[in-house]
Amino acid sequence: MSAVYERVALIGLGLIAGSMSLAIRRAGLAGEVVGTARSPETRAVAAEIGLCDRIVDTATEAVAGADLVVLAVPVGAMGAVAAEIGPYLAPGATVTDVGSVKKSVIEAVGPHIPEGVHFVPGHPLAGTEHSGPRSGFAELFDNRWCLLVPVPGTEPEAVARLRALWEGIGAHVEEMDAEHHDLVLAVTSHAPHLIAYTMVGVADDLRRVTDSEVIKYSAAGFRDFTRIAASDPTMWRDVFLTNKEATLEILGRFTEELFALQRAIRTGDGEQLFDYFTRTRAIRRGIIEAGQDTDAPDFGRGHGKT
Amino acid sequence: MSAVYERVALIGLGLIAGSMSLAIRRAGLAGEVVGTARSPETRAVAAEIGLCDRIVDTATEAVAGADLVVLAVPVGAMGAVAAEIGPYLAPGATVTDVGSVKKSVIEAVGPHIPEGVHFVPGHPLAGTEHSGPRSGFAELFDNRWCLLVPVPGTEPEAVARLRALWEGIGAHVEEMDAEHHDLVLAVTSHAPHLIAYTMVGVADDLRRVTDSEVIKYSAAGFRDFTRIAASDPTMWRDVFLTNKEATLEILGRFTEELFALQRAIRTGDGEQLFDYFTRTRAIRRGIIEAGQDTDAPDFGRGHGKT
Ligand SMILES: NC(=O)c1ccc[n+]([C@@H]2O[C@H](COP(=O)([O-])OP(=O)(O)OC[C@H]3O[C@@H](n4cnc5c(N)ncnc54)[C@H](OP(=O)(O)O)[C@@H]3O)[C@@H](O)[C@H]2O)c1
Ligand SMILES: NC(=O)c1ccc[n+]([C@@H]2O[C@H](COP(=O)([O-])OP(=O)(O)OC[C@H]3O[C@@H](n4cnc5c(N)ncnc54)[C@H](OP(=O)(O)O)[C@@H]3O)[C@@H](O)[C@H]2O)c1
Repeated sequence: MSAVYERVALIGLGLIAGSMSLAIRRAGLAGEVVGTARSPETRAVAAEIGLCDRIVDTATEAVAGADLVVLAVPVGAMGAVAAEIGPYLAPGATVTDVGSVKKSVIEAVGPHIPEGVHFVPGHPLAGTEHSGPRSGFAELFDNRWCLLVPVPGTEPEAVARLRALWEGIGAHVEEMDAEHHDLVLAVTSHAPHLIAYTMVGVADDLRRVTDSEVIKYSAAGFRDFTRIAASDPTMWRDVFLTNKEATLEILGRFTEELFALQRAIRTGDGEQLFDYFTRTRAIRRGIIEAGQDTDAPDFGRGHGKT
Repeated sequence: MSAVYERVALIGLGLIAGSMSLAIRRAGLAGEVVGTARSPETRAVAAEIGLCDRIVDTATEAVAGADLVVLAVPVGAMGAVAAEIGPYLAPGATVTDVGSVKKSVIEAVGPHIPEGVHFVPGHPLAGTEHSGPRSGFAELFDNRWCLLVPVPGTEPEAVARLRALWEGIGAHVEEMDAEHHDLVLAVTSHAPHLIAYTMVGVADDLRRVTDSEVIKYSAAGFRDFTRIAASDPTMWRDVFLTNKEATLEILGRFTEELFALQRAIRTGDGEQLFDYFTRTRAIRRGIIEAGQDTDAPDFGRGHGKT
């Protein structure tokens, strides 16, 4: 494939940026991938494992001469990074981000983007519970969605070029507006993560009561929750603080429903439980038909490729 | 391996019984495996795919001459099945069950077990979200726990023999009392399932608001919940109705914690969120160290062996 950008600058070298670098380089989609991270440790690891073509010490250095700049830091850090690099962005360059929340990132980053630079926010719906410079892999985005959330007035060419990059590394691209993005993600990702964190926290509290049997006998259900709840604390703190409204709205609805089901258990209303559980099955079928998961049995344990 | 039982009778031919039959026959642990199920359809499928050595029409026929009888029906149906077969059980035979709840099964089944017949309740911690006679596979119990919950006064030989069967089909066996079993499982399985069902139900309600984007963009987190929430409605209705007390106790604690985290989000208390999320990571490490899951990245999608 021919290069889509001359020089891609990755700010932050964790799971997402690392995977992007490996995928972009594998597909030959950029003349050069330059990367930087906050800590000397991360930069040293990235250099050691050859994560990018070039690792530099500062974000301002990284963006010099780059025609694509990718902000791949926690959502709460996007504004500060944008303020730092704003004055150094090349005219005609595109700035994008990969943050899990879009409204607050647009509010935080937008004001620092100078005239003549394009800002095309994005969010790849792909990830694992791992993080850091060693966690990336080139296949992360294969067949996953990447949502682009262009702000009104963005030049269509800038959006099309970014779309070509994401498609080149295996993703399917769709556009939507920020408000809608944040609501959909609150349902499909943010609220479920908080719920999983909560349930695992409860189990941890009960460890004294149940000895360590909660861990020992960890069954399907809880085991999936623990994987979700092993995700990076900084990233998720920022997600909840910045997608506050939509997340609280969904959690409010969740609590209402949970109370109704708890009441059905308490009063022994088996019909209500049965009907509810039957309805939720249909959603699963939809997801399998949409190709977002497989129907293969989980064998009660395996989650890896092996 | 030499046979542990002369004739094993499976009452119910779903995921668990089907997997047991395949595994027992593969390992040569029984002279004969006889099976029966409530509906002619299930019995026909089981006969067609050769799930057991012999399929019979009634439970009373199945238990005739069996030295092991396995009750593998939903927890709420155990009592009625036990009442039906009680008079036909062979002296010296062992009755066991595979129900996900133990206290209520013991209460429901115990009174129907005649003098001279052993009753050794059990629960294999293995399953998938699939059910029915076609869902079984011989490897289901490999390296999984099977908890035996002998009632006081049970002959140790009867327990040892059942243990040998489970170990022969790949499981690790532990004993515990019924009350403790039901609490541990409420934490590791029952409460997480109700929570997953609830969250998927909320998403379903929101389908009109979000079009079908909740399905389309289903991300890690929610996708795991939908798999859990695709489990059999009858089985889970019965679990919640029969492990009512422990499940409601755990859900009560869950709700308290969730409210605390929601308040932290509302007030912007990032430190509380960060500390909570950091604590839950340790539990995950414990589970991986205990060999109950792998640390391989999930790639945001794959759950099968493939
Ligand atoms: N993980 C997922 O599942 C996933 C999926 C989709 C989108 N996202 C989004 O992608 C972004 C990056 O996530 P990730 O999973 O790649 O995270 P990660 O593996 O934890 O990496 C984060 C990177 O950001 C840097 N960083 C952290 N705090 C910073 C700060 N205050 N200022 C400057 N740099 C900072 C880190 O530098 P050091 O290493 O030097 O600390 C690290 O290089 C986040 O916005 C997240 O919401 C994540
Ligand atoms: N699935 C799991 O993950 C899992 C894990 C551990 C333990 N368990 C326990 O194992 C037991 C069986 O579960 P499963 O997953 O094997 O279920 P399944 O695949 O749905 O099979 C259930 C079997 O029970 C029969 N049955 C249903 N209702 C009955 C009734 N009222 N009277 C008589 N027979 C009835 C069914 O007969 P028809 O096919 O003719 O309707 C079917 O053969 C349950 O007690 C469950 O709690 C399940």
